[in-house]
Amino acid sequence: MSTTIAELDAHAAAAEAAAPAWRAASAGSRAAWLRAAADALDAHADELVPLADAETRLGESRLRGEVARTSGQLRLFAGVVEEGSYLEAIVDDADAGVTPPRPELRRMLTGVGPVAVFSASNFPFAFSVAGGDTASALAAGNPVIVKAHSGHLGLSRRTAEIVAAALVGAGAPDGSLSLVEGREAGEALVRHPSIQAVGFTGSVSGGRALHDLAAGRPDPIPFYGELGSVNPVVLTPGAIAARGAALAEGLVGSFTLGVGQFCTKPGVVFVPREAGFAELVAPLVARVSGGPLLTDRITAAFPEGLAHLEADPSVEVVARGGSGGAEAATPTVLATDAAAVAARPDTLLEECFGPVTLLVRYDGPADLLAALRAAPGSLTATLHSEAGEEVTGIVAVLERRAGRVLFAGWPTGVAVSWSQHHGGPWPATTSLHTSVGATAVRRFLRPVVFQDAPTELLPGVLRDDALAAIPHRRNGVLRVPALSR
Amino acid sequence: MSTTIAELDAHAAAAEAAAPAWRAASAGSRAAWLRAAADALDAHADELVPLADAETRLGESRLRGEVARTSGQLRLFAGVVEEGSYLEAIVDDADAGVTPPRPELRRMLTGVGPVAVFSASNFPFAFSVAGGDTASALAAGNPVIVKAHSGHLGLSRRTAEIVAAALVGAGAPDGSLSLVEGREAGEALVRHPSIQAVGFTGSVSGGRALHDLAAGRPDPIPFYGELGSVNPVVLTPGAIAARGAALAEGLVGSFTLGVGQFCTKPGVVFVPREAGFAELVAPLVARVSGGPLLTDRITAAFPEGLAHLEADPSVEVVARGGSGGAEAATPTVLATDAAAVAARPDTLLEECFGPVTLLVRYDGPADLLAALRAAPGSLTATLHSEAGEEVTGIVAVLERRAGRVLFAGWPTGVAVSWSQHHGGPWPATTSLHTSVGATAVRRFLRPVVFQDAPTELLPGVLRDDALAAIPHRRNGVLRVPALSR
Repeated sequence: MSTTIAELDAHAAAAEAAAPAWRAASAGSRAAWLRAAADALDAHADELVPLADAETRLGESRLRGEVARTSGQLRLFAGVVEEGSYLEAIVDDADAGVTPPRPELRRMLTGVGPVAVFSASNFPFAFSVAGGDTASALAAGNPVIVKAHSGHLGLSRRTAEIVAAALVGAGAPDGSLSLVEGREAGEALVRHPSIQAVGFTGSVSGGRALHDLAAGRPDPIPFYGELGSVNPVVLTPGAIAARGAALAEGLVGSFTLGVGQFCTKPGVVFVPREAGFAELVAPLVARVSGGPLLTDRITAAFPEGLAHLEADPSVEVVARGGSGGAEAATPTVLATDAAAVAARPDTLLEECFGPVTLLVRYDGPADLLAALRAAPGSLTATLHSEAGEEVTGIVAVLERRAGRVLFAGWPTGVAVSWSQHHGGPWPATTSLHTSVGATAVRRFLRPVVFQDAPTELLPGVLRDDALAAIPHRRNGVLRVPALSR
Repeated sequence: MSTTIAELDAHAAAAEAAAPAWRAASAGSRAAWLRAAADALDAHADELVPLADAETRLGESRLRGEVARTSGQLRLFAGVVEEGSYLEAIVDDADAGVTPPRPELRRMLTGVGPVAVFSASNFPFAFSVAGGDTASALAAGNPVIVKAHSGHLGLSRRTAEIVAAALVGAGAPDGSLSLVEGREAGEALVRHPSIQAVGFTGSVSGGRALHDLAAGRPDPIPFYGELGSVNPVVLTPGAIAARGAALAEGLVGSFTLGVGQFCTKPGVVFVPREAGFAELVAPLVARVSGGPLLTDRITAAFPEGLAHLEADPSVEVVARGGSGGAEAATPTVLATDAAAVAARPDTLLEECFGPVTLLVRYDGPADLLAALRAAPGSLTATLHSEAGEEVTGIVAVLERRAGRVLFAGWPTGVAVSWSQHHGGPWPATTSLHTSVGATAVRRFLRPVVFQDAPTELLPGVLRDDALAAIPHRRNGVLRVPALSR
């Protein structure tokens, strides 16, 4: 059931009407609203998890964990709001002694206004109606209109009801959170004059289309898209010699996690040609059964993506897992050469959503670096090496190709924390900001500076007494309140 | 003489080659490079100012002041680099006690790579080859390729020579700063695969075209444009009653400053209908002579813009100043009504570059607010009121329409400081970042996070000993070094 344009207009008008209250809300109020949403999610987990499982087939234990991750994320942002650094408050006092005399300037960040959030298929809680984009937009002081993913409409509707009611129940205004459905409503949402920014998690093709709509508006707005990522992994000869079996086990666990539908799935693994890594991986894969994919579209696209890769003359099949049933995706490991990757990165390094990874054999540092430099931007890049190996050149390339560089770990698993960065060069994301972690709020904030304002006309947080309670900069000096946590 | 594509490719290759050294440079080195550029500008002021005056006709005293502003800006950014907060360093230590166990994450911002800067006609130093965009891009650790403005090509070439030599002389790599000329080279620059971000100051039409090129790339890049701004000013009945003559004098000084070619020129002034403000302004304007505009294009466009405004049936001429010569632009004050502005904002509130301002008579708060809400985004908005007047509704609208809200001052004059924000909703700027002030560096930085990295593979600034010397967050707590300035 698609949302009509008239219904969208009504949601947008309600969001516009709610925006001033969100911006003006005290840190305590806004944090309480976020925590009320978190508590409501947790309280309804027994109802929501079965709904989610019926629509996504991701399984109860994974989905229960995801609810906890999602409510925890809302609570992290409540803490970010209370801590106050996100306001980036900066004061320069007037200085009549310079030429020309300097006025008093008081700067802060404030909410951009209503935000559109496009939810993802693969995380029906954590990147969906009440997921990271929504949580960070609300924390920044903005109402949100979510475009529901067609893969879990029932869950989306119920989650939106629960969270919207919890927000209003805690004192937030009507219009704080609403839901639209259908592709046309989604496109109209991006073009809607009330919408000031867009958060998106999904495919490169879908994201590109919406990015172009946002950029093509009479008044362009920021589009924060997380699109596609192959998440390269580099294994050195030393690492395989020291712990090849463990690495093979770790890789198989990571690329098949969630049936290979994590945005941080290790999709391409660079291995020394003579190290015998494929031989370690093959028997492990053969023991893993396939599973159902999230949606009919993804189910249809997976064999097409595999066929596309296997059609390259350089590609061979290393191993396939058990079938797992008629509609299940079979875990698959392919192999090719670094020279082929460097020559045809668009073919060989395109993300293939599902349980497949591509081993890339390299013949030495130059061969490896040439292929890595040809790789598209990714969310993550991983290096497994041993102390004493010369890897600084590899790290330098990985740091340019990805937003998160891992050492001795696997990329599936994104801690929600102050420091996290979930983003990377195109096509991983479309912006210089993260979509996970405390700093995700910066996407939905704009600066405003008040020059020589009378105290009574300043926003509350920019008055001297309120400033003293939050980290802020004054005349170039960063000040942190003594009791700051 | 236009730059050829082959020449552009050579500049881009040199910038790419220089980028790693800029990113890796210590704070001390990078700050020294910026200060060397500042010192070189100051040392060559006697040569550069006459060059600038011959091309822009802005006059020696203004241009000398602008050189000082520009070198001071470079020195401010040197201080920003040394202070270290701009790195946004955040560390979350590993925690084996949570489920799943949390890895160690160390986040920082790092340079995006080569940046393109389009210089402006109206500030041949401060928004040009070595202006704010260049200074902030270099401070962020990125080489810069400047597209010279055709209005001051000779100055641009000489400035680029001087600054590039100063950078290299101080130890920066070749390729740190270069110059391209011509429209085609500028467009090719925005599309060039080596370029990772664009800074632009200029017209709405020119900026929109380049914005669309940047957004339309196979890999879209951020386009930070400062385009057009009418900078609304609101005068209350109380303010005019208390200090009408001073306000009239302030307005005339501000809208004719630099022959009305400041991006923060007060282009529209809301006045109570019965306050007699036009009568205060008219005699002052009549005493001001016109002056030459910056370029032939601007000289031709000014009378066209005036005619466009005067063609509106609601518009009348309040006063014109002296002619000032054959090619000079005559200072002009026009008047209309708030209802006309609310009905036809696209006609009446379009920026007209040059010495003209439009008085808008309003009949009370509702009339005023309706017109203000119709105004396009601006860099600044100004309120002159008296204590005791109810203006919170006005301030709430101004804060949404502009990035800087002034009280009892005039918008021409943009302090370069930690707190400054020079930006605003479309069409004032195309991003949620400032182009003036310390935080302008954020436009040219991307986050990167290192997970469980061995100390020896971390960037120097993320190692514990280096972190202790800069503001950073650890496990959620913001820490400031004791000796931080």
